[in-house]
Amino acid sequence: MPMYFSVTQEGTLSTEARAHVAREVTRIHTTATGAPTKWVHVIFQTYPPGSGFSDGVAGPAATLIGYLRSGRAAELKSKLVQDLWPMYRDATGLTDADIVVALQDVPPSQAMEMGFVLPELGQD
Amino acid sequence: MPMYFSVTQEGTLSTEARAHVAREVTRIHTTATGAPTKWVHVIFQTYPPGSGFSDGVAGPAATLIGYLRSGRAAELKSKLVQDLWPMYRDATGLTDADIVVALQDVPPSQAMEMGFVLPELGQD
Amino acid sequence: MPMYFSVTQEGTLSTEARAHVAREVTRIHTTATGAPTKWVHVIFQTYPPGSGFSDGVAGPAATLIGYLRSGRAAELKSKLVQDLWPMYRDATGLTDADIVVALQDVPPSQAMEMGFVLPELGQD
Repeated sequence: MPMYFSVTQEGTLSTEARAHVAREVTRIHTTATGAPTKWVHVIFQTYPPGSGFSDGVAGPAATLIGYLRSGRAAELKSKLVQDLWPMYRDATGLTDADIVVALQDVPPSQAMEMGFVLPELGQD
Repeated sequence: MPMYFSVTQEGTLSTEARAHVAREVTRIHTTATGAPTKWVHVIFQTYPPGSGFSDGVAGPAATLIGYLRSGRAAELKSKLVQDLWPMYRDATGLTDADIVVALQDVPPSQAMEMGFVLPELGQD
Repeated sequence: MPMYFSVTQEGTLSTEARAHVAREVTRIHTTATGAPTKWVHVIFQTYPPGSGFSDGVAGPAATLIGYLRSGRAAELKSKLVQDLWPMYRDATGLTDADIVVALQDVPPSQAMEMGFVLPELGQD
């Protein structure tokens, strides 16, 4: 953790763009949280045209959802999504109307990384 | 937001069925919540046969999970999943035993849409 | 519910390995929680090489995320992820550095299974 999932229509992110987004998510997340970069995972999933919809109409809806340890301040998480947004919009080349960026909190006691249950924030 | 993900076995939902489900999710969600249709995104993902399991046995497990702003009344969300269920079951042609429908709350302060951090409910 | 999603790089889990993991997730979850096996769903998703990243570098990042009814004791959920971890690591053949296992709570009132809104824990 964090574990980020990017879901886009096929063709939205090239191999180079995925590598760029992965590096940027890693940089932005660790800058905001102070977490070591080695904890950051990013997985890119795609769907074929005709499988994404916004406002009931087929289109290149894209989302970046990050699962992170619960306990971070709301202000930090707001800042984090605001830093991720322009990077993700520019990398995908999509408009603001097609993108959702969100963070989901996971209680540390019910997540494992590197073979260990995550410690509470401030206890690692 | 909301952002809905449908995950089904390949072949479960045709192109026409996906468009139908997307329109119905949009209609049902906005009817229940009063949200504008333009905020509703739906993405369909599939997996090949042999990659879905219920009760430990391979089969066409299907799920519809929606991420929405936290703060909605429990009764509204219960009504929403109950309205989504028969539509999704009929569209997929699956039995009740193969389907899961669930909603996940996301604090507005840690989600962005249309370029902006989401306002708290009642403050848009 | 529970609904588990495994996401791995293509080629990580063979057909046999997916069936094994599905049976083991079903066994481990029901042993820990007392839930009937028929409620357990597992879906396996894959991504092509070059679409998974750890520490900003492309690699076979793998995750097992389970959505379950909220209300379980933290100790039970910690035990559950600890039981899932070695099984998933061994089945994928990956190292501890490539894997994330996590549980997400879903309030029963906003989830449906078998055609019914889930009862609160202790009320089924």
